[in-house]
Amino acid sequence: MWRYETTVRWDSGKEGKLNSGGKHEISVATPPEFGGPHNIWSPEDLVAGAVASCVMTSSLFFLEKAGIEPHSYLSKAEAVMEKTSAGLAFTGIQVDVNVSVEAEDEIEKAYNAIEKAEKSCPVSKSLACEVSLKIKVDCLATCRES
Amino acid sequence: MWRYETTVRWDSGKEGKLNSGGKHEISVATPPEFGGPHNIWSPEDLVAGAVASCVMTSSLFFLEKAGIEPHSYLSKAEAVMEKTSAGLAFTGIQVDVNVSVEAEDEIEKAYNAIEKAEKSCPVSKSLACEVSLKIKVDCLATCRES
Repeated sequence: MWRYETTVRWDSGKEGKLNSGGKHEISVATPPEFGGPHNIWSPEDLVAGAVASCVMTSSLFFLEKAGIEPHSYLSKAEAVMEKTSAGLAFTGIQVDVNVSVEAEDEIEKAYNAIEKAEKSCPVSKSLACEVSLKIKVDCLATCRES
Repeated sequence: MWRYETTVRWDSGKEGKLNSGGKHEISVATPPEFGGPHNIWSPEDLVAGAVASCVMTSSLFFLEKAGIEPHSYLSKAEAVMEKTSAGLAFTGIQVDVNVSVEAEDEIEKAYNAIEKAEKSCPVSKSLACEVSLKIKVDCLATCRES
């Protein structure tokens, strides 16, 4: 069993400060579409960020298991929130992962590792909505040729 | 329909950088119990942070509706992750909210507002696990007397 603890302290208006142990403090606020300020992380952004980063950390685990050190890894997560019969809720999260590997024979292995990663990511698995994954693996050697 | 987009770029080891529009960049990493570094936000921490901050922003909304400006608001969220038959997943999140209000007749209203907030918080509602709430409302006047 693992425990993850955070605290949030309200400052003023619709803003507060989020902390967790000795980690860098994060300013948080109501998103702008509900009257909050621009350019501050909202709880809704943090959900998208938790999914994106969980797919990354899980991918790194499975890539390492497959003996692959990626050249680069970039992913995007877009969380969609809608009015549902139970009120506002997330209805889907789309994750796009773009990875570059060094050698052509690593492409398929990397693809499989990232597929496994999304399935085993505890954040995706703990969400009630669907998380969809789109994976693109490039090979540096191939890129140089094209 | 609202969309929340983030990107994560792997740096090296088990670390990456999380971005969302022009917001402050957040360093993210695998949590220490799975081989990552200390003092960097993990995806698991971000889940707890998303819940804590969503309960805060929702509370501010309902407190405002009730005509209450709190004197202070502090909350803690603890997310528990366990090995389940489906693999690692969150099995429960405990949120403790501590609020101070200025006047004694605001105590019950504030309590009700925060209860409503948790029920309507889109992050809690989008999680498959249970989110439990413990509310404590203090009144500054009472505190001064005691």
